[in-house]
Amino acid sequence: MTRVLKFGGTSMGSVENIKNVAGIIKSYKDKGDDIVVVVSAMSGETNRLISLANSFATDPNPAEIDTLLSSGERVSSSLLSICLNEMGIKAISLSGRRAGIMTDSHHTTAKIDSIDDTNIRQLLKEKTMPIVAGFQGFADDKVTTLGRGGSDLTAVAIAGSIEADLCEIYTDVDGIYTTDPRIVPNARKLEQISYDEMLELSNLGAKVLQSRSVELAKKLDVKLVSRSSFAPNETGTTITREENIVEQPIVSGIAVDDDQIRVGIYKVIDQPGIAGEIFSKLADDGISVDMIVQTVGVDGKTDLDFTVPTAQIKQTKICMKNFKDECKYIDYNENISKVSVVGLGMKSNTGVASKAFTALANSGINIRIISTSEIKISMIIDKDKSTKAVQALHDIYKLGI
Amino acid sequence: MTRVLKFGGTSMGSVENIKNVAGIIKSYKDKGDDIVVVVSAMSGETNRLISLANSFATDPNPAEIDTLLSSGERVSSSLLSICLNEMGIKAISLSGRRAGIMTDSHHTTAKIDSIDDTNIRQLLKEKTMPIVAGFQGFADDKVTTLGRGGSDLTAVAIAGSIEADLCEIYTDVDGIYTTDPRIVPNARKLEQISYDEMLELSNLGAKVLQSRSVELAKKLDVKLVSRSSFAPNETGTTITREENIVEQPIVSGIAVDDDQIRVGIYKVIDQPGIAGEIFSKLADDGISVDMIVQTVGVDGKTDLDFTVPTAQIKQTKICMKNFKDECKYIDYNENISKVSVVGLGMKSNTGVASKAFTALANSGINIRIISTSEIKISMIIDKDKSTKAVQALHDIYKLGI
Repeated sequence: MTRVLKFGGTSMGSVENIKNVAGIIKSYKDKGDDIVVVVSAMSGETNRLISLANSFATDPNPAEIDTLLSSGERVSSSLLSICLNEMGIKAISLSGRRAGIMTDSHHTTAKIDSIDDTNIRQLLKEKTMPIVAGFQGFADDKVTTLGRGGSDLTAVAIAGSIEADLCEIYTDVDGIYTTDPRIVPNARKLEQISYDEMLELSNLGAKVLQSRSVELAKKLDVKLVSRSSFAPNETGTTITREENIVEQPIVSGIAVDDDQIRVGIYKVIDQPGIAGEIFSKLADDGISVDMIVQTVGVDGKTDLDFTVPTAQIKQTKICMKNFKDECKYIDYNENISKVSVVGLGMKSNTGVASKAFTALANSGINIRIISTSEIKISMIIDKDKSTKAVQALHDIYKLGI
Repeated sequence: MTRVLKFGGTSMGSVENIKNVAGIIKSYKDKGDDIVVVVSAMSGETNRLISLANSFATDPNPAEIDTLLSSGERVSSSLLSICLNEMGIKAISLSGRRAGIMTDSHHTTAKIDSIDDTNIRQLLKEKTMPIVAGFQGFADDKVTTLGRGGSDLTAVAIAGSIEADLCEIYTDVDGIYTTDPRIVPNARKLEQISYDEMLELSNLGAKVLQSRSVELAKKLDVKLVSRSSFAPNETGTTITREENIVEQPIVSGIAVDDDQIRVGIYKVIDQPGIAGEIFSKLADDGISVDMIVQTVGVDGKTDLDFTVPTAQIKQTKICMKNFKDECKYIDYNENISKVSVVGLGMKSNTGVASKAFTALANSGINIRIISTSEIKISMIIDKDKSTKAVQALHDIYKLGI
C-alpha cells in the first residue's frame, strides 16, 4: 500500500512531537507500506520569520518572503529525516524543488503547475523514504510558496502523481465532526464524507482541511484521511468520492461562519445591469461575495443584500464608493453569522430545508438571508443566536452521538 | 570599484544589527560601487539548529545537517535583502546553489570545486545587488556546507571569480592586532599584513580569519580587509600579497595558542623508523601533530616531544597505545602554551630569534620546545607564564602603540 502522510505544524511543533510523528511513520513502515511524508514548518516558526521580515518592511518582496518562509519546512523535514534514520528507517529530506513541485511564479500564492515525481519514485524504488518539505515549490529556478494550507496541497498533489492509495492529513484534530464540538458537545466524528460536502464544510468554517486541498483531491481522485497525530489510534475521517460512500446521510454536518459581514443596499434603482455592475466591480477588486438576495419593491426599486468576508470590509467600502448615486444608503452589519446545513442526501430528499427553517423558528431565531445549493442550505442570522442555531439544527437532524 | 562584503553572525545577529549592516552597504552603494554581499546565519541560529538535530541523533546524517544548517544563511540573506529593498536598494538573495558555488560532496566539510558566477555577473549588470547565503554550496543537486569559516570562503571565492578589487570581512573585531589586546592592552592594530603572516597568526590562535579563507585569498590573489561592522569608520587591516607591503616590519605580531598538549615519549629505542611510524599512525588517525623535537641520548635512546590540539587528546591516547613496547613511558602535559613571533622581516634579519629567547630568559620563562620557519618562531612554555611571555615579546619587538 502506498501512503502519503502529511504532518501539520502542531504535529511537528517540538522535539517530542516529531518523535511521536516518527513513531506513527514507523508503524506503517513495519507493515511494509511505501510511504512519502510531507511536513509543515514547526508551529510558530512561520510567524517568527514573518515577524522578522516585518521588522524591515511592511510589504516585503514576495520572492524574498518565499525564500525566507520555505526554510521552515526544510528545517522540519531534515529534523524528521534525522529522527527516522536514527530509528533505522532510511529516509532523506527533499526541498519542494527536489520533490519536483513545479509552480507558476506567483510568489507567496503560487499554484502547482505539475509534479516531476522522478526523484520520489526513484527513492521509493530504493526503499528510501522521501520526507518532503511542504508548502513550497519552484518556478524559474526560484523558491515559491503555495499560500495557506500549502503543505496539504503538496501532499495531495504528490499522492495524485504517484497514485497513492491514501493521503493522510495529520493535525491536532482527530477528524471532521458533524459540527464544532466546542459549540455542540455531543457532535459526532464522521467516518466518511464526500469531497463536495467537505468543500461546503471547509468553506464554511470547519478549519481542519483547506478547500484548495479538497478540490485538488477531488480533481486527482485522491482519497484523503483527516486524523490526529496525537491520537493515532483514532481512525479519523475519510474524504472520498460520493460513489464510495455507501450510505449517504441526508445531512452530514452543520457549519458556522462568524467572519462574514452583511452589506445591505437599499432602494437601488431598478435598472437592468446595476446589480451586475456592482458585483463585477467587487470581483475586479478581488472581493469574495458570498450570499446574494435581491428584492424588487412595489416602487420599482430594489433592495440588494450580500455578504463579504470580514477581512475584506475595508476594500468593500472603498469599492462601493463607486456606486454612491445608485444607492440611497448602504448599511454594513457585522453582527451576523452564517449557519449551513450540508449533506449529500439533500439531493434526493425533500423537506430538508423546511426542517431547518422550523427548527430555527422554534428557537426564536430570525433568518435574514437564505441561499441553497444541491447539498447545502445556508442561512444568515444574528450573531448572538449562532450557537443556539447550530445546536437546534444539530438536534433536528439527529447528528449527535 | 567592485567589492565583496561579508558579514558574520554577530554583525547579522539581530534586527538592529542587520539594519546597521544595510547602512554600511548603502554608504558604498551611494559611492557607485558594484557590491556583492555574503552573509552568515544570525548568531546563535546554527547552534540552535545543531542542538535540535542532536535531540534526535548524536551523529546525524551529514547531508541532512547540511540541509538543516544552510537554512540559517538563507534566512539572513533574505532578511538583509528585504531590508535593502525597503531602503531603495535593489537586491536579491541567492542560495549557495543559485550563486553557483559548486563543491565536492563531502557533506559538512565540502570544498569549493568551482564557481559559476553567471547569475552574480548578470545581476551586477542589471544593477541588482546579489545577497549570497554564505557557508553553503551544492553537489549532485544537494546542498553542501563548507565547514567552519565557510562564509568567509564563499566571499573569497566569489571575489576571486568576479575579480573584485576588495573582499571585506566584517566581524565584531576591527582588524588584526599585534597580539590579543586582552593580554597586552597596548596591542596595536595592523594596517596591513601579508597572507603568510596572517596564516601563521590565524593558525596560532588569532581567531578573526580562518586559515582556509586566507589560503584561498592568497591563491586567488584576493585583497582581504578585516574590519568591524560595529565600527565602520575604522579602516581595519588589509591582508595582501607580500609585494604590496611597502615597508615590511621585522615582526608583525605575537600569537598565543593555549589549546595544545605536549606529548613526551621518553627513551624510545633509537631504531630507525620508529618516530616515522608513530607520526604516520597519528596522521592516519587524523591527528594534527604540530611541534616536534627529538633528542638522542648517550645510551642510544631517543626522547620524543610533540604537541597535539587539546581537542584531539583522547584520539591521541588511543593511537599511542599501538606503541607501548617502544616507549618506557608516555607523558601528557596540558599545562603548556605555544607563543609565536611572526614577521615577514625575519627572512632578511638575523637576531630575531635570539632576541625572543633573551626576552623570555630575562622574564624567567623556560622554553621547552622551539621550532622556527622562515617567518615564525614558536616556543612551548608553561601555561601559567603565557601572558607574561606575550607581554615580554610584544615589548622587546616594540609592537605597542
